Amino acid sequence: MMWTLWTILSLVVSALAIGVAVYFYKWVQALPVAEGNIDSISKLIRKGAFTFLKREYRILTVFVGIVSILLLIVFPSPVWKGGISENILAAVSYIAGAALSALAGYVGISIATLANVRSASAAKKGLAPSYMAGFRGGAVMGMAVVSTALAAAALLQILTGNADLVIAFSFGASSLALFAKAGGGIFTKTADIAADLTGKVELGIPEDDPRNPAVIADNVGDNVGDVAGMGADLFDSQIASLAAALVIAASLGKVEIEMVFCFSALGLLASIIGVLFARVGPSGDPGKALNGGTLLTCGIFAILTLAATLLTPEFNIRIWGAAFLGMLVGVIIGFTSEFFTGDDKKPVEKVAEACKSGPAFTILSGISYGLVSIMPSIIGIGVAALGAYKLVEPLGVGYPMFGISIAAIGMLSIVGMIISNDAYGPIVDNARGLAEMGNLGDDVLEITDKLDAAGNTAKAITKGFAIGAAGLTVIALLGAFQEIVESVTGEIISFNLMDPLVFFGTLVGAAIPAVFSAMLMLGVNRNSQLMVQEIHRQFDTIEGLKEGKPGVMPDYNKCIDIATVGSIKELIPAGLTAIVITLVVGFIGGVQAMGGYLAGNIVTGLFLALLMSNAGGLWDNAKKYIEAGNCGGKGSDAHKAAVIGDTVGDPFKDTAGPSINTQITVVSLVASITATLFATFSIFG
Amino acid sequence: MMWTLWTILSLVVSALAIGVAVYFYKWVQALPVAEGNIDSISKLIRKGAFTFLKREYRILTVFVGIVSILLLIVFPSPVWKGGISENILAAVSYIAGAALSALAGYVGISIATLANVRSASAAKKGLAPSYMAGFRGGAVMGMAVVSTALAAAALLQILTGNADLVIAFSFGASSLALFAKAGGGIFTKTADIAADLTGKVELGIPEDDPRNPAVIADNVGDNVGDVAGMGADLFDSQIASLAAALVIAASLGKVEIEMVFCFSALGLLASIIGVLFARVGPSGDPGKALNGGTLLTCGIFAILTLAATLLTPEFNIRIWGAAFLGMLVGVIIGFTSEFFTGDDKKPVEKVAEACKSGPAFTILSGISYGLVSIMPSIIGIGVAALGAYKLVEPLGVGYPMFGISIAAIGMLSIVGMIISNDAYGPIVDNARGLAEMGNLGDDVLEITDKLDAAGNTAKAITKGFAIGAAGLTVIALLGAFQEIVESVTGEIISFNLMDPLVFFGTLVGAAIPAVFSAMLMLGVNRNSQLMVQEIHRQFDTIEGLKEGKPGVMPDYNKCIDIATVGSIKELIPAGLTAIVITLVVGFIGGVQAMGGYLAGNIVTGLFLALLMSNAGGLWDNAKKYIEAGNCGGKGSDAHKAAVIGDTVGDPFKDTAGPSINTQITVVSLVASITATLFATFSIFG
Repeated sequence: MMWTLWTILSLVVSALAIGVAVYFYKWVQALPVAEGNIDSISKLIRKGAFTFLKREYRILTVFVGIVSILLLIVFPSPVWKGGISENILAAVSYIAGAALSALAGYVGISIATLANVRSASAAKKGLAPSYMAGFRGGAVMGMAVVSTALAAAALLQILTGNADLVIAFSFGASSLALFAKAGGGIFTKTADIAADLTGKVELGIPEDDPRNPAVIADNVGDNVGDVAGMGADLFDSQIASLAAALVIAASLGKVEIEMVFCFSALGLLASIIGVLFARVGPSGDPGKALNGGTLLTCGIFAILTLAATLLTPEFNIRIWGAAFLGMLVGVIIGFTSEFFTGDDKKPVEKVAEACKSGPAFTILSGISYGLVSIMPSIIGIGVAALGAYKLVEPLGVGYPMFGISIAAIGMLSIVGMIISNDAYGPIVDNARGLAEMGNLGDDVLEITDKLDAAGNTAKAITKGFAIGAAGLTVIALLGAFQEIVESVTGEIISFNLMDPLVFFGTLVGAAIPAVFSAMLMLGVNRNSQLMVQEIHRQFDTIEGLKEGKPGVMPDYNKCIDIATVGSIKELIPAGLTAIVITLVVGFIGGVQAMGGYLAGNIVTGLFLALLMSNAGGLWDNAKKYIEAGNCGGKGSDAHKAAVIGDTVGDPFKDTAGPSINTQITVVSLVASITATLFATFSIFG
Repeated sequence: MMWTLWTILSLVVSALAIGVAVYFYKWVQALPVAEGNIDSISKLIRKGAFTFLKREYRILTVFVGIVSILLLIVFPSPVWKGGISENILAAVSYIAGAALSALAGYVGISIATLANVRSASAAKKGLAPSYMAGFRGGAVMGMAVVSTALAAAALLQILTGNADLVIAFSFGASSLALFAKAGGGIFTKTADIAADLTGKVELGIPEDDPRNPAVIADNVGDNVGDVAGMGADLFDSQIASLAAALVIAASLGKVEIEMVFCFSALGLLASIIGVLFARVGPSGDPGKALNGGTLLTCGIFAILTLAATLLTPEFNIRIWGAAFLGMLVGVIIGFTSEFFTGDDKKPVEKVAEACKSGPAFTILSGISYGLVSIMPSIIGIGVAALGAYKLVEPLGVGYPMFGISIAAIGMLSIVGMIISNDAYGPIVDNARGLAEMGNLGDDVLEITDKLDAAGNTAKAITKGFAIGAAGLTVIALLGAFQEIVESVTGEIISFNLMDPLVFFGTLVGAAIPAVFSAMLMLGVNRNSQLMVQEIHRQFDTIEGLKEGKPGVMPDYNKCIDIATVGSIKELIPAGLTAIVITLVVGFIGGVQAMGGYLAGNIVTGLFLALLMSNAGGLWDNAKKYIEAGNCGGKGSDAHKAAVIGDTVGDPFKDTAGPSINTQITVVSLVASITATLFATFSIFG
């Protein structure tokens, strides 16, 4: 047992966060639900979401089981070299990571499907109560995810003091996240695209019209894709950044380990304060409230960590500087994404303008701005890494990489707040749908529309943030990989780009995000075409459905079923491809090839993730900008072109783009886990 | 003077190639031109192309002038350190490189605009004569380009023995190529898109209908974009691969320099034989004839170089192995591209199928397959580099990088044949247009359609090949950069990915191709919208034009003017951005950051170039597949969706994609040229 001040405080703050989560959960649950059919519709959504989760988790249990047996055999060191007890601990940590990630997804879905209907109902009383229901619902997820990750890392540190186990735990969380994000992402866009194409485009009926057989599936998708998926993604980045920092810190000393827990605990504390104080005035701007909360949290984090550093003589201020730099760059990346996707900014206006010349120009201009948007974010990540390294370099050998890992911790410090903002989005999106389907009236729709729009803007920021955080984290994981290899081989290693194995690895690694994201998008393509056929079948065979004859209901479950079965079928191959190629490269080229492979994978992974997220957000908002009456308005040819752009952007921004985050993390962790093997056996390495 | 066997033979073979070029030029020129207005239309095209070229070259003269003054000051070493005579030679070499590249473009345009009308006219006599006119026209360009590059390198070697001058020469060729490719690419797609959207989509009139005011501009574009641009691109790769190999060989010994010239000269000889023997039977398949010629050339190259290696005791067979491997991988990459873009292959069928579900699915499936297509080619390049390195490694220190540069030479050995095949494409495309505009009848159209389709297939292969060649060349240039830095600093350097400057450079370098290609595509977007407006204006104001009243002619020159002015305005900023950021990174992070920067730039450059080329080719052929009567055929909704896909693909495959090749070469050369400066002054490096 190795109790230290900040591991204990980490547990305390985590407990506090769980307390807040429980309080918010009960608070949301106690809110009234409006009368009418809204309750029964929301229960359909809840049931659909749980059905999907159950089926998904069943498949993933098999996967986790197989991997944990493999871990038992090879990690941290092959059993034939002795030391089975460490391997058992690693396998258990892996399973715990996967289980807790699954649990976080489950809790998130559970609260989101309670909060959506209550947010819609509360909109009858005004914007503020409706906002609070949505935000506090999201905050349950935020608090639950971050506290679980931090508490697990602290417990593993206290009980074993072995950072390798945090790597195993993190790998468990990521491998679940990989599939949850991919599966949920395919589900949500399958339903969204099919609903839009048949409803909005073909029939001209509004979004969320209850006549559309895909409408419930679409709302289920918001939950399983955006709530559970995004939560799993950030859980994954959070725990991976902790793992990387702890592995590197372990080679430096106890003080550094303390600093990791100190900064993480204070980040969570800052998020708790931010979440508790988040409010919007009765006629206030919900978007500003969300961003205001983020900035408040950042400020509190900076002050608290600075104070802790100054008050603890062993803590070096340069390390605080790295954390602060990381946080700062995170915020800057978030706001860069907002510039490229905000509907009051030039890129959106230009794309909307291009829509007037038809769909081809819509696509070309969106992709072009998406490509341009890569530059500031990727340079931001580079500057953060370079700055953190240089800041901490004077402290001695081994410290510079620690600086980068601390920058990642700093960037992820406010992740509790970020997840809260992010989960708010799909909840109020659902609330809007329920208000429409439950006929709550135009006043309510106006409020939920406002909340939904704020959710979209906040999402642009949180997505940019998530990509930036993943970027820094995987750079730190590259450091952790190096650390592990050095501790195995007892040699100082470097990855020289002029070494052909490194270069070969870089090229192969660069191709992975492309293939991975293509497989997911082709999955969405296939499934949504199936669902469109099913919707057409229902419109053709169910009498009175198209016309909206009272009492005639579509068969919602059939569409939920198509999305569920389809996405579960598609999620395994893409994830496995990434993992298997990693192993093949490692066994062919050894640790040298693997170093290059990780770097190549990070570079094009960030490249594609930023392109897809930002282009997707841009098209979405260009469509909304036109719908607000610009460039010809709703129903014009420009609008039709914009809808096509939005449809292309949907799997970009909600399936492939954000899944790449998780893919690069998983691949980095696989490399760390198997480093010992590659260092021992490989064909060329 | 340093005459050696293979520098002399290089000059001899180059002279032979120039002889063949002159013979083919006269042969084509002597072919008869059909009666009617086809002659006057073809003269319009010729005039438009020369006007553009003249204006473009005027701007570029200024650019080349400025850069040559800068070179005079800093390359190979700053004048304030003495040694002005070397710098004068470098500046002269630079100007010579630019001038010869310009000349090659001029010759190419000149023959192409003679061959197009003669190919159309010859189609009256059958497929074989028409094919020969197109192919021999293309071969003039192929022979001229390769012989110029090889002769220049050999002369520089004989006269000075200074490989740095070949770098300067190569930089001259590339900086011209960068702008020629970008400018021509913007011109051709501006006109193509505008013509398609107003003609085919809005009015439903056929391609190349003389009523369309953009139709001549479209045909001019084929020449300035595809003939001059692609020629400049491959000239650039060819000379850059020679430069990289010679810089590395110079540090090894005279035998290695001889091998470089030996392999290059025999490659050109093989291409001469291939070109002279290219034939198609009267009812033969022109596509097979083109590919057959390529394979024949490869075979001859392999045998000749093997024989030369075996007969020369100093030549090591391992180095031959590297060249052979490079050639082999080049062919494999070419055929991979064909798999992803061939209209009898699965991807095209799948995308055509997706067109039935609308434009959004067309775009999504095309991008997805484009992303998948990256993998085999990029792994091919990686395997070639790794294989060449490992093959040559036993020869000692310094050799492995030489192996990679020789693989690039091997891959580019058959470039004479490749350029011939490639320039054939736009010539017969023009011939088809002239046959339509000149009313040469349905029989002629059928033949020219067949020849055009073969050109498209050959193009897919040559494009994949061009990207692969650029990939290997820039890897070799990275080696040359290292070589130059080591000779300046006197230290062995490596680029360690864990060095934050290297990593920072990698991230920034990765963003360059994105921004560069986005700027070009936005340029096409802007200009084609302008041209569409002009076409609408003409249709609205010129009476009887739409209806095709005899004697009523559109104002073709106005459209040519829009494309010319627009593309010249757009080509400078994109190119300058890439060059300036390179300098900024070098001055901030020194040679370490520059090493990473080049690697990042290569990786995402290849990534984007492959994605854009292959997705673009895929959409083009999916459209043709539907037009051939599949998936609903011409005029169906699927066809409309396919046209949108093709329009998106046009700037992908003909503007941005191929320009990236040149961008990565230019950036690599800039780095080599400025290496001395960065090694001396930089903020962090």
